[in-house]
Amino acid sequence: MAPGKTNFSSHEFPMASGASPFSYRTNSAYQRRVVRATKQLMHAVVMEKLQVENGSIFQITDMGCSIGPNTFISVKNIVESVELKFQLINTQKKHIQVLFNDHAYNDFNTLFASLPSDKSYYAHAAIGSFYDRVFPDKSIHIVNCSYGLHFLSRVPKNVENRESLAWNKGKVYYSHSKEDVISEYSKQYEKDMECFLNARAQEVVPGGLVFITVPARPNGTPHSKVIYNMLADILGSCFLHLVKQGDIEEEEVDSFNIPVYITSPIEVEEAIKRNGSFSIEKLEILSKETSPINGLTAKDASVHIRAITEGLIEEKFGTKILDKLFQLHEQKLEDAYLDLISGEAISLFIALKRKTNL
Amino acid sequence: MAPGKTNFSSHEFPMASGASPFSYRTNSAYQRRVVRATKQLMHAVVMEKLQVENGSIFQITDMGCSIGPNTFISVKNIVESVELKFQLINTQKKHIQVLFNDHAYNDFNTLFASLPSDKSYYAHAAIGSFYDRVFPDKSIHIVNCSYGLHFLSRVPKNVENRESLAWNKGKVYYSHSKEDVISEYSKQYEKDMECFLNARAQEVVPGGLVFITVPARPNGTPHSKVIYNMLADILGSCFLHLVKQGDIEEEEVDSFNIPVYITSPIEVEEAIKRNGSFSIEKLEILSKETSPINGLTAKDASVHIRAITEGLIEEKFGTKILDKLFQLHEQKLEDAYLDLISGEAISLFIALKRKTNL
Repeated sequence: MAPGKTNFSSHEFPMASGASPFSYRTNSAYQRRVVRATKQLMHAVVMEKLQVENGSIFQITDMGCSIGPNTFISVKNIVESVELKFQLINTQKKHIQVLFNDHAYNDFNTLFASLPSDKSYYAHAAIGSFYDRVFPDKSIHIVNCSYGLHFLSRVPKNVENRESLAWNKGKVYYSHSKEDVISEYSKQYEKDMECFLNARAQEVVPGGLVFITVPARPNGTPHSKVIYNMLADILGSCFLHLVKQGDIEEEEVDSFNIPVYITSPIEVEEAIKRNGSFSIEKLEILSKETSPINGLTAKDASVHIRAITEGLIEEKFGTKILDKLFQLHEQKLEDAYLDLISGEAISLFIALKRKTNL
Repeated sequence: MAPGKTNFSSHEFPMASGASPFSYRTNSAYQRRVVRATKQLMHAVVMEKLQVENGSIFQITDMGCSIGPNTFISVKNIVESVELKFQLINTQKKHIQVLFNDHAYNDFNTLFASLPSDKSYYAHAAIGSFYDRVFPDKSIHIVNCSYGLHFLSRVPKNVENRESLAWNKGKVYYSHSKEDVISEYSKQYEKDMECFLNARAQEVVPGGLVFITVPARPNGTPHSKVIYNMLADILGSCFLHLVKQGDIEEEEVDSFNIPVYITSPIEVEEAIKRNGSFSIEKLEILSKETSPINGLTAKDASVHIRAITEGLIEEKFGTKILDKLFQLHEQKLEDAYLDLISGEAISLFIALKRKTNL
């Protein structure tokens, strides 16, 4: 893919920007738990596995960085580990450059306005989808992608095709739908992972590292038993409620789907092996306790889902239904609370190393 | 200067952002003439002077890029010349990375939203003032800074000090003030140029190029005879008008100054020689015809000055006086039009090459 590609699919997630009370920034506090949980894991991999080559510039990228503050915490953790590693192996002086990556519609103004004043790295932004090439060949030493890869690059085509067996009529999400729909989402995830891994395989130096953290589904657990998915499915029922009340058309709901997929350890492992460019250095399941959605009130959980989906919904339905939709959502989450807390909510941390013998 | 510095002086110019009808974006059409005029000059220098070293990444930065579209035109011109040069010398395949630089408060969202879809380079943003370090040592091959270096890093301190001989009472700009004020502005310019050149000397690879374009004053011409300065001085008289009408306090005007300085060819040359790290490969005076302010109507000229100063004025006086101030400004420009068109309006193009024998 040429670096020139900047026409992103309209289905990429425009996270609510800094000004909204439902903004990703305000609500990402929950995701910080995961960032903290991965700190020690990343530190160990940097110390044990990172191969430091010659050259005076060391480049780290946080892909799908959104608007902060989580990206600053992740980056600080990685930079501290890297600096310690440099000290221990007594390498030549290196300049650390951090490239904050997200697509062009991310609110970089908010991100830049809150860059830490005491940072010890050069701060750059790199524009583009992480499913495409973003950097030159062999220019990146560490990639971090935290809570990004469950966002698909697009809604699977057949899911919105009335002629297809996989048409997702009456739903806005895959987890509680028929097998054909789940299968389309799963295939799209496979394609997207291959795009991500293939692009990174070219960009990361041999011996360089890729850290991935994603919400996940335990192997063998049905998609419908994952809390994240249950929250999204309940949002779907709220859309149908608005159809009944005449606020929106049934056809609009039939042609709207949320491009998120919750993977499992086995699917991630298969994707990495299929790609073949990386060795798996660590694959660790983070418990429900570290999950962003663990212990949320119905209100908080609804606000969390709103922060992630608001941009997409607005694009399809305008702003007028938003408040009503999420009031309803909060209420339904309240009613379903006992069900919800019995669901699964693990995250997955994976550390990859770019193979050197390719 | 450590790369961590992100607390910019409040006197840096926050260009009006994309949404304002007086935005830099809308009004920068005038500046495009200069960009076009420098195209051939830059092309010749790239072809004749650029030394292409080994390495697969070629980095170009546009410093003080603002929000476009001029930066995209400058960058396109430079990239085309560089690609042609690569072809001619048949060098190894190189990835071109363009780093759009401006301070953290620039409206990067507007910039990114209009990145050309057919660009042949990797687009990054690099955050920071060009008077500080922005990049690692020896990492940049070409720097472009177009219509940026007439913005000083700050208002000279003594100009706002009541105890100083250089106190700029009753004025908001230096050009029509007493010699002490002019001298303080000139000293600040010298300091700033040294900061700019010293930072670039470390960042640019030996044999790499720096292109500078600035509005300028012919050698020996008084500051008061430069159109740019005349426009700003007339703005000062509008502030006094508002004082008389009771809209603002005299003390507020006494403590407000516009940190812009119009240099001359001889001053630029001296600054570069004093710094010592660069050879001057070209120093070309661009005629009044190519000037951004040539041939503007009074209204257009006032809008032009508003786009540049609005952020500063708002910071000091709030938004309430803006419309009244610039209505008055337009009217006074209309009255002074015959005077104005007799003024000077050259620009200066300078091409520098990082010395290799240091």
